[in-house]
Amino acid sequence: MRALIAGQGRLPELLVERHRAAGEALVVCGYAGAPGRLDPDISFHLERLGGLLRELRRRGVREVCMAGAVRRPKLRVWRLDFATLRIVPRLARALGKGDDGALREVIALFEENGMTVRGAHEILPDLLPGPGVLTKAQPRDGDRRDAARGEEIVAAMGAADIGQACVVAAGQALAIEALPGTDWMLASLAGPREEGLPAGGLLFKAPKPGQDRRADLPAIGPGTIRAAAGAGLRGVVIEAGGVMLLDREEALAAADAAGLFLWVRPKGG
Amino acid sequence: MRALIAGQGRLPELLVERHRAAGEALVVCGYAGAPGRLDPDISFHLERLGGLLRELRRRGVREVCMAGAVRRPKLRVWRLDFATLRIVPRLARALGKGDDGALREVIALFEENGMTVRGAHEILPDLLPGPGVLTKAQPRDGDRRDAARGEEIVAAMGAADIGQACVVAAGQALAIEALPGTDWMLASLAGPREEGLPAGGLLFKAPKPGQDRRADLPAIGPGTIRAAAGAGLRGVVIEAGGVMLLDREEALAAADAAGLFLWVRPKGG
Repeated sequence: MRALIAGQGRLPELLVERHRAAGEALVVCGYAGAPGRLDPDISFHLERLGGLLRELRRRGVREVCMAGAVRRPKLRVWRLDFATLRIVPRLARALGKGDDGALREVIALFEENGMTVRGAHEILPDLLPGPGVLTKAQPRDGDRRDAARGEEIVAAMGAADIGQACVVAAGQALAIEALPGTDWMLASLAGPREEGLPAGGLLFKAPKPGQDRRADLPAIGPGTIRAAAGAGLRGVVIEAGGVMLLDREEALAAADAAGLFLWVRPKGG
Repeated sequence: MRALIAGQGRLPELLVERHRAAGEALVVCGYAGAPGRLDPDISFHLERLGGLLRELRRRGVREVCMAGAVRRPKLRVWRLDFATLRIVPRLARALGKGDDGALREVIALFEENGMTVRGAHEILPDLLPGPGVLTKAQPRDGDRRDAARGEEIVAAMGAADIGQACVVAAGQALAIEALPGTDWMLASLAGPREEGLPAGGLLFKAPKPGQDRRADLPAIGPGTIRAAAGAGLRGVVIEAGGVMLLDREEALAAADAAGLFLWVRPKGG
């Protein structure tokens, strides 16, 4: 039996849709803050993670997929269930770490309860497009240089366990992703660009070096493409094998309509 | 004779004011894009840097201070003067580098023309406040942890020659400075914070590791404090000996009025 630990966004929806279409069983566990389009079988809070683990064992779940964004919550002691009490120190430690550290801690908890943790891309491998330029628009030489610079920036940020994306134009970092995420970063660049800043540019997105691939790989979708167009970018570059493309047809149609390129770039160019 | 290469912002104004008050001569060279409050002796473009160097030599300038922000311009060939033509390859190379690389190239040009390049803090050492908390509000334990995390983030970004500042709340990076600068970063956080993001937080600012101190050190001033308050932050942390505080009295009054702390923190805590 497989369970889905569902955060926000399109990815958990896609996983549910595909399982239903294939007639495969899936226990959908909705993180309480996540929006309700999913109709989860179990709804849980961080403070009831211990109870959730016990319930999943009871249902015979042997495989878990964590998918979708979860904003780092505060641990509210008055909400703790009995089964969670003994893992509180580990949860508290996880919450104090960077994204990757926190994920590793949560993954370890599932594994110690006899469950294998799989990334969404292992279950739906077609979410990881092969290398190449998927759009009518093609990157130019300047874009290729900007992509190489983006790779360098994301790698440097990875050393501090932050961000997976940046916007580069004319070799310079126009924006760097932090906790609020890619869409927020692109929205901050929407509208006419301040005088003196280089025009155009691209969104570069890649997993952090050493990122644990049992959890979500980074993802883009049609909304990312539209936000990139709104920010005046020329295109989007994702690392081949490292970034998921959700709703591919819609995303490519949006890119072609806006004249943006979408380049699935092998690591290192 | 000393010359000031003046970009935008308050720092070049302060340098001019102090020289006038002391009755010391100063050749003020205004970068053309910079605003006109300075009334420069010489106005120049990047494309006329060669001509500027010749003019400064003619006037007997032996010491140069570069101060104030300059947005990376494009090199427009039709504007080149004859004296600049032969340094075009170096200018083009400088423009393609990160901030630090570009500065080093420009500094080398001045030095090859017999001029010593000094940082504004060498001329006005009181712009670098000594360590300590300068405000009524004091940092708490959580702020001290956030400051340590900020130091780690700016150091990691320095490896890619980007940014000198970030916003940290509850141990996490809320925003990271890129080309548009600190004020822009803080403005992007203004208003009510999105649900799920940690409250409070601080602005951390420090020079990049290995930054060339013959050019501008990073700086904050009253505007930074007000922008930090507008972003809902609890305070501002600058690295002792590495970040200038402009218009100190006004900045501290603004911090006290808004209840923010301003902590001049020795490197490493």
